[in-house]
This record gives sequence, structure tokens and C-alpha cells, in this order.
Amino acid sequence: MNIILNLSGIKTEPWAAAFQALMPDATVQIWSPGAPPADYAVVWAPSQQFLDEQSRLKALFAIGAGVDALVKLRLPAHTLLVRIDDGGMGVQMAEYVTHAVLRHFREFDVYAQTVAERRWLPRRPRASAEFPVGIMGLGVLGRCVAGALARFDFPLRGWSRTVKSLHGVESFTGPDQLAAFLAGTRILVCLLPLTAETTGILNRETLSALMPGGYVINVARGAHLVDEDLIALLDSGHLAGATLDVFHTEPLPADHPFWADPRITITPHISARTVRDETASQITTKIRALERGESIAGVVDLARGY
Amino acid sequence: MNIILNLSGIKTEPWAAAFQALMPDATVQIWSPGAPPADYAVVWAPSQQFLDEQSRLKALFAIGAGVDALVKLRLPAHTLLVRIDDGGMGVQMAEYVTHAVLRHFREFDVYAQTVAERRWLPRRPRASAEFPVGIMGLGVLGRCVAGALARFDFPLRGWSRTVKSLHGVESFTGPDQLAAFLAGTRILVCLLPLTAETTGILNRETLSALMPGGYVINVARGAHLVDEDLIALLDSGHLAGATLDVFHTEPLPADHPFWADPRITITPHISARTVRDETASQITTKIRALERGESIAGVVDLARGY
Repeated sequence: MNIILNLSGIKTEPWAAAFQALMPDATVQIWSPGAPPADYAVVWAPSQQFLDEQSRLKALFAIGAGVDALVKLRLPAHTLLVRIDDGGMGVQMAEYVTHAVLRHFREFDVYAQTVAERRWLPRRPRASAEFPVGIMGLGVLGRCVAGALARFDFPLRGWSRTVKSLHGVESFTGPDQLAAFLAGTRILVCLLPLTAETTGILNRETLSALMPGGYVINVARGAHLVDEDLIALLDSGHLAGATLDVFHTEPLPADHPFWADPRITITPHISARTVRDETASQITTKIRALERGESIAGVVDLARGY
Repeated sequence: MNIILNLSGIKTEPWAAAFQALMPDATVQIWSPGAPPADYAVVWAPSQQFLDEQSRLKALFAIGAGVDALVKLRLPAHTLLVRIDDGGMGVQMAEYVTHAVLRHFREFDVYAQTVAERRWLPRRPRASAEFPVGIMGLGVLGRCVAGALARFDFPLRGWSRTVKSLHGVESFTGPDQLAAFLAGTRILVCLLPLTAETTGILNRETLSALMPGGYVINVARGAHLVDEDLIALLDSGHLAGATLDVFHTEPLPADHPFWADPRITITPHISARTVRDETASQITTKIRALERGESIAGVVDLARGY
């Protein structure tokens, strides 16, 4: 069995070593143009030439949870495209979002400011009941985030394309229930896959529908958010702030207004990164299942886009 | 039945109203010198004169979890001193500590700095396995903190005076096991009561025993920490930083070095505040139990000091 790797912008040797250690009998190779086609491919931002050369591929494994860039490429015919289910990203996402929620709710950003001015200024406590957290997207990552937040007292709500039932989370489904979901949400967490339907879903209309003093946490894709609509609603006072980890263009261009906006906290797309060992282990487990003729989780529905 | 309130520095009328609403048949009064002695007293930083006047008190309820200042006063003889068990403080403490742990582990303080310089600089992820969190004090608040942190992947350890068994927490007990507890702890959370035995427990010797790159979170009392020992160990590089909510003198004096130390995050004693309605409800429930001759939780052992 041949496994080929094409990981753009990532040091690939440690990945090849991880796969070789997990599958000693396989031939593991790092792609270069003209390499023989393989049975299985592991990719991150692969080149079109690489994809075009894979004439006999059984499955193409992306090492990220989001495949929105990949599905825009011309993929080999009759190949399964598989995204990772978690690979250690769920807990990282829970860390990132929990931190952002607590930082906003407990006003640690404000304390950082008053302390910098050497002022001892306790603030009036706020009630968790007035800060319902609404999670858009209840896949593996959304469920991890909900599980971590459940230890606190925030009312939890979730919105997803299909019906999802999560203990302690008030669930809303589909376009018909989006308005009701937004109207009762104060801290909005976007964890949606990026598809034609979700592009620009965080816009003037939807963000205006949040509770007054709304707060936006986007850890999905930059294209979910209409940047100028966010700024307009911060300016109007309807929104209190945002924490953004993802942007239309990354790195965020030097002249983008988000850099210097004190109401917006930004990070350089670090909310959840692929953990090599867990990801390699997950992919090799799936390769073995496919070899046995079994079905696997994480297969992308190309029509749906995730 | 008479209930008397002496809450220094706190607006007392809403508290009196809360007790009156919960116990319509009781006489609820706010103390002034010479007021008739009561059956039950509710206090925060009471005056010695107040305590001396309470000649027939059945129980003295403190509205905080820490009674270290109170036990240094001359208390009425044969009176139960009762501290609140939680009163909404557990979840606040879990919020505060979880935020501080995640902020340090995920280096959000460093990102704030690089983003302020408009630099897009993702950092190499760190492994939770290398950041064991050790909680000193496993009472109601310590257990709430452990429960919240359990949703993440940090190894959890606890140290307490008496044996405590908590799912998912490696437990250490008493002075004999303190060294072993510290040696495997990287992020140290202090939630101990302040007693003769725990005063200055965070000192050069104990903090030196933490794992290299140790981090200190003190949310108990300022007197647990020897300030100059913390600074010395930050200077030596053995410790990476600290988050402190409590100080020897509060407000923290204007010339204290903690204010301007970039390795130390400070907040003005806001980690967990008493929630009036929950506290009043808890105290009236206990008063009713005492009137029925039942025993109650939270009675302070004056010899032990908490």
C-alpha cells in the first residue's frame, strides 16, 4: 500500500515518519512532481498538479476540519474526501472559546486597562443568566465547546442545519429557527463549516438580531463574517465587541481596521491546530477500516460542501 | 426571632430587605450602637463593639467564605460561627481560575502583545500534558475549580489537609505529601483558608519546588504569598508568571512592584463575590435548621481557624 503526503507550508518529514511508524508495511512518500500515484493521500492545501496526478486514489485525507478550500479544487474522480473528526482540535477549540467567553463576561479586558492605569477598581458583578451563549454549528467541535461551557452558568443555545440534541443546550434547527436562535443569544460563537449557504452568515441582519450588547466569537472561517457589518454594529453600540481568530485574508493585511480596534480581539488563526500524532493515528485507523471494506466517519459530502 | 446585620462597607438595606422577604415573621434590623442584642447576626468585617453587644447570640453568619479576619476578633461566647458554603462563589471561582489557566497555557497574553505590534505570529502549540494544574485546598471552591478544569486535558492534582477523593484528580494530603504535590505541579492554584499553618505557604522553598516554568494563581488571601519570594523566582526564571487577585494590603498600595510587573496579572479581589440572594437564602435555611435543633454545614472550627 502506498501513502503519499502533500502538505504545503508544513514541515512534512515528521508527518511521514509518524505514518511510517503507525503503518510499517506501507510505502510512505512525500510527493514531488511525477511521483507514482498512491492508494491514499494526506494533504494540506495540495497543489492542483498533485491532485491531477493521483489517478488511482482510494481516499484523500485532509488534516484539517475545514475543507472549504479543498472542495474548490478539481479532485480525483471516485475518491473519498475525508476530513478529520477531531484529532485533538475539539479540546483546543473548547479552550479558546471558553477563554474568550469568560474574558468578555468577567471583563478581564477592562481590568487589564484599569490595572495598567494603576487603578484598583472592582466592577459590579454581572449575571451569567443575562449572557446566553449561542453556538452556530454543533459538530464535533461545537459539542466540545458546549461541554466545556456547561460547567458554568451561562444559558446555552445551539443552531445547526440538522436537528441535534445536546443535554443542557436549547437547540434550534435550520433557516426557519435562525431568528429565534439569534434573538435570545448574547455571545455568538461561529463554528460552522464554510459553504455557499454559510458564507457571509454573520452580517448586518443577523448580528442586529442578537441581544443588545451582543458579542461575536468567530473561530470558523473569515468569510462567515461581513467585516464592515461588524464594525457598523460596534459603532452603533448594538454589539459590545468581538474575538476573531479567522479572516478573509490571512495573515490579516497590515491596513485592516481590525488590528487597531480596541473592541476587537484578534489572534492569528490559532484557535485549534492539527495535532500530528492524533491526526496520523486517526487517519491510519480509517485507512485500515477502508481496506477491510468498512465505512468511516468524516467523509465529505461534496454537494453539501463539508 | 431577631436577626441583626453589621456589614461594614456594604450597602446593608438591600440585605435587610432580602432577609425580611425570606423570613417575614422575623425582626430584621441593621445594627447601630446600643441596639438590642439579637438571636442571629449576619456580618462582614463587624466592629468589636457590635460583637461585644451580642450577649445572647445563637449563631454568627459571615457572608464570605474566608473567616480569617473574623476569628482574630473577640467573638461572643457559646456562639456558632458559620461561613457560607458556596453562595454562588464556586462557579465564579471556576470562571476566574479557568480563565487564568487558559490565558497562560494558550499564551493569550503574548498574542495581545504581538497583535498590538500588528504582527501575525502564530506560536508553536504547547501540550496540556506538560502543564499539570495543582489545586491547594479542595473545599467547595476547589472542587468547583477542579470540575471546570476537568473538561480540558490538563493533568489535575489536589492538595488538602485531610484526604479528599475527587474523580480525575490525583490527591495529596498533609505536610508529608506537599513536596510530591509541588514537584509535579506547573500551574499552582491557591484556594486554601488562611490559618496560622497556611500563612506564607507560597514562599521561596515551596515555589522553587514547582516544575520549571511554574505559574502561580492566588485567589485565596494575600498573606498566603511571600511577595518578594515570588518576584525573586520570577527573576531567576524558575517561575513564568502569576495571576493574583488578593494581596497583603488591599487596595494594593500604589508603590507596590506588582502593579507594573509584566509577568504578573493582577485584579482587584474580584475572583468570587458574595451573591446576595443566594447567600441570604442559604443563611435563612440554616437559621430554620438551627431552630429545629438540627446541625448545619459551614460551622467554623475556631481551633483550626476555618
